Amino acid sequence: MFSAINENISKYVSFTPEEIAVFNDALQLKTVPKKTFLLQEGEICRFEAFINKGCIRTYYLDEKGAEVTLQFAIEHWWVSDIASFHEQKPSRMFIETLEDCELLTLNPESKELLLRKAPCFERMFRLLVQRNLSRLQERIFHTISLNATEKYLDFLEHYPGIPNRVAQHYIASYLGFSPEFLSKVRTKLAKK
Amino acid sequence: MFSAINENISKYVSFTPEEIAVFNDALQLKTVPKKTFLLQEGEICRFEAFINKGCIRTYYLDEKGAEVTLQFAIEHWWVSDIASFHEQKPSRMFIETLEDCELLTLNPESKELLLRKAPCFERMFRLLVQRNLSRLQERIFHTISLNATEKYLDFLEHYPGIPNRVAQHYIASYLGFSPEFLSKVRTKLAKK
Repeated sequence: MFSAINENISKYVSFTPEEIAVFNDALQLKTVPKKTFLLQEGEICRFEAFINKGCIRTYYLDEKGAEVTLQFAIEHWWVSDIASFHEQKPSRMFIETLEDCELLTLNPESKELLLRKAPCFERMFRLLVQRNLSRLQERIFHTISLNATEKYLDFLEHYPGIPNRVAQHYIASYLGFSPEFLSKVRTKLAKK
Repeated sequence: MFSAINENISKYVSFTPEEIAVFNDALQLKTVPKKTFLLQEGEICRFEAFINKGCIRTYYLDEKGAEVTLQFAIEHWWVSDIASFHEQKPSRMFIETLEDCELLTLNPESKELLLRKAPCFERMFRLLVQRNLSRLQERIFHTISLNATEKYLDFLEHYPGIPNRVAQHYIASYLGFSPEFLSKVRTKLAKK
């Protein structure tokens, strides 16, 4: 149950057997069927979830009510609305399972307790938030600087496991394309 | 020299006199005249700067080459391109002083050394990155959900000290308005 997460966090921090025990104690296992909302707009996010198994999508609604996909997350990624989680303010996002999921979750209280008992994990969470910020910045800059083909190739590079698991219209909503336009980009690339 | 920064960080973490000495030792004082680029697109960001005195603007160029202001920062704010700083990759941003500035800076090496010597500061930097991420998310969501007047009022709330120190066209480029349109919004509000 903890083998994937323990391997994952060892990339960020070194820890003693006692510290990893505290970490694993703080986690709660949740199994969630596909097409379930973990969070909806207006709710306060009460989890940071590590995905043991499954696929999750984060999105928001634009001014016309259209879904804009912010992020996909699969095995060994973390998912949350970090701003809502930490400031305990209503979220603007939806977080939805696309497949049956097995998650290891922290809530605000268990995370704070973990960090008090084992401050070595502060570093890990700092590095995770930094990566998150970095990706969000990249998304903003790519929106203005890459052409359609480059955007799709960048997507494939960052999400190599996703295209076979996720409906095409979700990928289109991540890229800011219509599904028809995404199809054209894919056809053009396949011919190359 | 260190009184403002030490008071600022005490909001985030508690530390011993030895730890704060290590922190202050890691900082480098820089005085920079106004209208100086601390960072330009394509360069790798080598600083995280706490502003003791002065005003700074962060912006990027959109697909038409127009400036989009990302952030203003004044006394007791931190400024950096965190993604570029931590991944040591070329930045997409410009960071420019708008006034003569006195800065306390960390570079990647001094920051890592600081965190090795005094890991209690991991928490502070995590909380700073979280706030940064939270503001960036809010900017994205406000772009789609607030009307022009609300955007300007939100700006005044988050940057109460800025309007009297910064040229109006910079504020317009933060809000995504033309300078003329910002002027109209201000006139409308003044009449209320």
